[in-house]
Amino acid sequence: MSVTFPAGFTANGVTAGLKPSGRPDLGLLAADGSAAAAGMFTTNVFSAAPVNLTRQRLQQPTARAVLVNSGNANANRGDQGDFDALLTTASAAAALGAEPDDILAASTGVIGGTMDTGKIQDAMPELVAGLAADGGARFAEAICTTDTVVKEAQAEVGPYRVGACGKGAAMVEPKLDLATMLVFFTTDALLSTAALRMLAKTALKPAFEQLTIDGCTSTNDTVLVLASGAAGGPKVGTGSKEWNDLASAFREMGDSLAYQMAADAEGGTKVLLVDVVRARSNDDAQVIAKAIANSVLVKTAIFGADPNPGRLVQAIGSSGARFDPTKVRVWLGDVMVMDGTSMAASYDDAAAHIVVKQDEISVRVDCGGGPANARAIGCDLSYDYVKINADYTT
Amino acid sequence: MSVTFPAGFTANGVTAGLKPSGRPDLGLLAADGSAAAAGMFTTNVFSAAPVNLTRQRLQQPTARAVLVNSGNANANRGDQGDFDALLTTASAAAALGAEPDDILAASTGVIGGTMDTGKIQDAMPELVAGLAADGGARFAEAICTTDTVVKEAQAEVGPYRVGACGKGAAMVEPKLDLATMLVFFTTDALLSTAALRMLAKTALKPAFEQLTIDGCTSTNDTVLVLASGAAGGPKVGTGSKEWNDLASAFREMGDSLAYQMAADAEGGTKVLLVDVVRARSNDDAQVIAKAIANSVLVKTAIFGADPNPGRLVQAIGSSGARFDPTKVRVWLGDVMVMDGTSMAASYDDAAAHIVVKQDEISVRVDCGGGPANARAIGCDLSYDYVKINADYTT
Repeated sequence: MSVTFPAGFTANGVTAGLKPSGRPDLGLLAADGSAAAAGMFTTNVFSAAPVNLTRQRLQQPTARAVLVNSGNANANRGDQGDFDALLTTASAAAALGAEPDDILAASTGVIGGTMDTGKIQDAMPELVAGLAADGGARFAEAICTTDTVVKEAQAEVGPYRVGACGKGAAMVEPKLDLATMLVFFTTDALLSTAALRMLAKTALKPAFEQLTIDGCTSTNDTVLVLASGAAGGPKVGTGSKEWNDLASAFREMGDSLAYQMAADAEGGTKVLLVDVVRARSNDDAQVIAKAIANSVLVKTAIFGADPNPGRLVQAIGSSGARFDPTKVRVWLGDVMVMDGTSMAASYDDAAAHIVVKQDEISVRVDCGGGPANARAIGCDLSYDYVKINADYTT
Repeated sequence: MSVTFPAGFTANGVTAGLKPSGRPDLGLLAADGSAAAAGMFTTNVFSAAPVNLTRQRLQQPTARAVLVNSGNANANRGDQGDFDALLTTASAAAALGAEPDDILAASTGVIGGTMDTGKIQDAMPELVAGLAADGGARFAEAICTTDTVVKEAQAEVGPYRVGACGKGAAMVEPKLDLATMLVFFTTDALLSTAALRMLAKTALKPAFEQLTIDGCTSTNDTVLVLASGAAGGPKVGTGSKEWNDLASAFREMGDSLAYQMAADAEGGTKVLLVDVVRARSNDDAQVIAKAIANSVLVKTAIFGADPNPGRLVQAIGSSGARFDPTKVRVWLGDVMVMDGTSMAASYDDAAAHIVVKQDEISVRVDCGGGPANARAIGCDLSYDYVKINADYTT
């Protein structure tokens, strides 16, 4: 059910013809009325036109709908890009009987190039006519690019429902304030915009910032959260039990979507989970986790099912994080492969080989003293990643 | 002639049997007498035993010889690693009739594992007996791992000669104070150790820090410079014309070796030269140059001969460097592919396709205002890089 699982939302996805493949490429997620809205966006300096427009429109507390196209990122297209974002959202507004400022936008696909907004305008009547409370799956499909499966999550939290979907298979290392990762959360809880922003920042930013497919932060990363209030009841206040329950559900769903993206990474065959514990600070923990998950030597070793602890040593040691090297211990699955500045004396190569043959590979780094933990969610680097990215213009 | 081109040096390389392949794996570079010596080393926290030993021994101003093994990095082996570095350099000292503290060491190969020092000791008589003034090529071969060709450079600077060799095909992004890149420079100029250190820092550090094969800074990177003084004449003072001429030669040779390593990168089919000009600071320029050269999306696009300017945009925009995005211009070869926040209006895709089919691809980024320039020397990311690193334990 995806983003239409909560009450108060309809969605649809159609083929406008932006993608040469002829697969669905235009999605619309609409609230029945005005929904509290919050967003987080790429930190890439060359943020795309829909990112800039949506960031600006989210200065107001509510929104009515989100128009998403795949097939073109509408990034780095200068004034034409800004114009096209305005034009297509205005077209959606007219079809919905809403104000243009109430329509948010997101795009994903090739950077630069021509975007045929005529096709988007032509598809708008069909897109709006097909909006339905069971349209979440069609929306989730329309936002995909090289994704091979849709990514969805949903939860029931007391009287409330939360739905989410996302896409992202490459150019993904979200840095939120965020990749082209696009993520959409909906809930029917009644939340103020301030509370919704807080929920997004505390629960979703850390969830998606764990993820790195290829260390490349997109121009288009967008996380949008809409709250319809359709479940009724009083406003959910920040810090209340209901708010904490919603935050937990948001975080679990964020973790799930991030994992689904890593599992569907371009060419990916294995998910890599790196947990760093007992680091001096969150920054130190995150830097080590990302250094391992982003190392092309680690990623290719994992693809080859080669334990290669030396590459973990290399990545940790050059990460720039602060730690006492004599106290660092590293496990591959449940096999200790490093103990201080020497390889674990009893490092069991046969056992480690079994670990790295699995579809999900866990690396655990104990920094030996400190309050901070962090996880990175990554993937391997395969022949197919090279093939997809050598042959495909993204 | 490599490192034995200057007067006052002999070298040799033999097969001790550390490499399963049976290729040469033990090299010795010896000064006829005491040579002024300077070194730069990896910044990886888990620096290898020979790095730690050599860094300590270079607190004295001179050295007699450098013992280098390939096949094992002698890294992350705890006390045993330290012991093995002491033992093997002591063995070389005894065979040369030198003090142990006068023998420097470098290692490259697999991190961890067992290093059979008995094989090194057994090979020592043959290694020392074969030291010769034409042994530079044998030395250059013995230090290689996955390198497919030796990397050498030489120059004549007035009355002086300068020789150099190096190795490095992966786990290479030197950060000197430096990758397993190993580099050895020799000169017969008479230089104080202080002047030699200055020469290494000003001429060689920037040369090698341009290089990135895979963004992974090794535990073993080492640059050593020996000056025999055998050319005679007065000491070459810092800042003198002779010193400046030597510095220019060192820099050119450093640039040449860095280029040779990129050209011989594991699985590499193309060299990528990224020049960033008119940046606000050297740091900003370097950060942008390295962000492009290290982007797996740029590297795979180049392997596929796909111009893909959007990936250059992505890399520049998420680099963290400071610049005015409206003023950035980017060229692929001589084809402008980006102008401010839009793709160059007349971006000639056919011409760009011709550029990216070449063996050497140039990217130029004009930041639009500022005094600083930087270059990064990189390479593409191919199926063979994945194959080599999925199948080979380094």
